Amino acid sequence: MAQDKERTAPKATGRGTYAVGDARRAKILDTAVEHFAQWGFHASSLARIANDCGITQGGLLHHFRSKEDLLLSVLAQSEQHDVERLFSGPEESVAAYYATVVALAADNARRPGLVRMYNTLVGESGHAGHPAHEYFTQRYARVLAHNVRLLEAGVARGELRPGTDCEAVARETLAVMDGLQIQWMLAPEAVDMPARLHGYLDRQLRGISVSGTGLPAAAPSA
Amino acid sequence: MAQDKERTAPKATGRGTYAVGDARRAKILDTAVEHFAQWGFHASSLARIANDCGITQGGLLHHFRSKEDLLLSVLAQSEQHDVERLFSGPEESVAAYYATVVALAADNARRPGLVRMYNTLVGESGHAGHPAHEYFTQRYARVLAHNVRLLEAGVARGELRPGTDCEAVARETLAVMDGLQIQWMLAPEAVDMPARLHGYLDRQLRGISVSGTGLPAAAPSA
Repeated sequence: MAQDKERTAPKATGRGTYAVGDARRAKILDTAVEHFAQWGFHASSLARIANDCGITQGGLLHHFRSKEDLLLSVLAQSEQHDVERLFSGPEESVAAYYATVVALAADNARRPGLVRMYNTLVGESGHAGHPAHEYFTQRYARVLAHNVRLLEAGVARGELRPGTDCEAVARETLAVMDGLQIQWMLAPEAVDMPARLHGYLDRQLRGISVSGTGLPAAAPSA
Repeated sequence: MAQDKERTAPKATGRGTYAVGDARRAKILDTAVEHFAQWGFHASSLARIANDCGITQGGLLHHFRSKEDLLLSVLAQSEQHDVERLFSGPEESVAAYYATVVALAADNARRPGLVRMYNTLVGESGHAGHPAHEYFTQRYARVLAHNVRLLEAGVARGELRPGTDCEAVARETLAVMDGLQIQWMLAPEAVDMPARLHGYLDRQLRGISVSGTGLPAAAPSA
């Protein structure tokens, strides 16, 4: 969760200017998340981001070569969090993996700025000329392939029903996650995102598991 | 489908300048769809939209009071199409309604510019300060309420299982539609959007219908 505000305070590591540089870089990334979320890529301005960080545009360009570089760095950092979260969980069953996916949605519900940025950027990246179009196209292909592999492993070990259309199920799961994020940002008080995702994955799993069982009850929210 | 290119040609109605005015208004709306899709609201410019229409910014302001007015007019027009499509279909069963929803997705697959605009604008409207935030919040509430009513009617007449969580099912359907639109814009050749939606609704309906039957096979794409 590298965007957490506490990351912006340099650690007392004795690394001197390196720690100051790391802190400044983190501060720029945090600030860029808010700007891209609110204004989108095209209407965001490096000068205004720098100003909000209390540095000059030249100082910002010392850390990021261009607005495109800052955009892709922000996206890479947010993906890194997701990957660490998903890959740190157990993969011995589809049910266990789905529990990790719900936990990730619970993380996201505590990071509205990141979710807002994600929704804004993935929406505008549908245009082939957008600087993150290629990034998102590849990110979706990666996430889809990962989910399909996990489901196919579930079929192979007899957890899921033979003949399960793993790509259809994986695409559906990704779609529900993205769509719930949209609904949540528009009406956060009306949508319990991790609970809705849990309900969906539970019903989905009952439909495709050999035993007909779904997900264990979700852990209560922190 | 008011954004169709043929709408920009004035009809030979003999209405004279009214017809010219209608055609110009339609041309501005078509052009705005493309600009909002590519640049988002904030980076779109009335001057550039007017220029692409071959008129002055003053000429554009004769039809739309402001960029916010143009934005909300574009959104209202796209919603109008959806409403006419969905309400023209039969509502005697949830299965029939779902067939209409799949037909709407097939419409959308023929209107990538509109889908791209939708994804861009709904993404950035997650920010409470966005000029379409209130519009989208209310649009989602309307669509959700409509879907919940149809599902509850299905339960009441014995088509759907008693105890079906209609709000959960309706939110899931909306989420899958939005999420598939994102996947489709990023990789149109890899995602058959209406077919994926049909597959999802078919599985969903098998799970909640009393008879355990799903959707009839989709009509072949036009």
